[in-house]
Amino acid sequence: MLKEAALKEAWQRKYPEGVWLAVTMTQRGTPNAIPLGWDMPVSGKPPLCAIAVGKTRFSHECLKANPEFVLAIPSENQHAEMLYCGSHSGRDEEKFPACGFATAPSTKVRPPLLLGCCANLECKVVAAYDGGDHTIFMGEILASHADSDAPGRLYTLGGNRYGGVREVVKTQKG
Amino acid sequence: MLKEAALKEAWQRKYPEGVWLAVTMTQRGTPNAIPLGWDMPVSGKPPLCAIAVGKTRFSHECLKANPEFVLAIPSENQHAEMLYCGSHSGRDEEKFPACGFATAPSTKVRPPLLLGCCANLECKVVAAYDGGDHTIFMGEILASHADSDAPGRLYTLGGNRYGGVREVVKTQKG
Repeated sequence: MLKEAALKEAWQRKYPEGVWLAVTMTQRGTPNAIPLGWDMPVSGKPPLCAIAVGKTRFSHECLKANPEFVLAIPSENQHAEMLYCGSHSGRDEEKFPACGFATAPSTKVRPPLLLGCCANLECKVVAAYDGGDHTIFMGEILASHADSDAPGRLYTLGGNRYGGVREVVKTQKG
Repeated sequence: MLKEAALKEAWQRKYPEGVWLAVTMTQRGTPNAIPLGWDMPVSGKPPLCAIAVGKTRFSHECLKANPEFVLAIPSENQHAEMLYCGSHSGRDEEKFPACGFATAPSTKVRPPLLLGCCANLECKVVAAYDGGDHTIFMGEILASHADSDAPGRLYTLGGNRYGGVREVVKTQKG
């Protein structure tokens, strides 16, 4: 039997960990955004990424109804916007423009880009895999946008703390 | 058509990003370890995590033959060990003990724990999902171990640079 306290302690050692936002379309035809810590690149050719979304989350409904998302890397200056999106549910309210993120139209999908982020990836869901209490939505990246004016990305520092990080280089090869 | 240069620029904005190691068993009955950047927690109940492993990689063969792995979070002092594991293939040589990681027996799986890491998660593969040029191996976490004496985790800083990071707290809630 797995010791839950031990697992919690192990996961705590992940921090600081880069965070993401998934922007989806609600069935009302409006955008919604949730902070995500559980996501990864999956493939180079074709370009794929995966996000794990809780089955009870409003964004899960959105992705099932409208299988597209924008995966955004928020900047360290967007911590307040991130907290807003993480502490309000799109079931109860429209998060835009209240959350503070400004948007721009995407080129290939309906969910919009988030301005001021380090990067935005436009994705179409090509598979949904069962993952316990989450679903793994795999997205094919149809278009991408980087903002070279944005500062470094935002990290979760554990608990409800968000921040940036500064590098301490240890090894450089090649 | 996705612009590859634009996607590369977008992925560059991920760094610094926490890195992991997957320890597997070769068909020779020896341990092997590869650095991983593509992995995520997937589920709380049951406790699941996922790793994306290139289909041509030696570790892919190992996982197909012996569907167990230890997911380790290396510490910022283990950059040299990490570089060794990333620049040598288990197809050609035994990485242990040459890589410099010391090991200890796991409690539930055959691949060993890596000493000095921030944490080790013992996993059994419960699903393998297609992911383009990678396979997503989903592991159920059977046991976990955290080392409170280990310093902060190791990050890839982009290219072949590895290092630690220091937090810059921006938001604290609750």
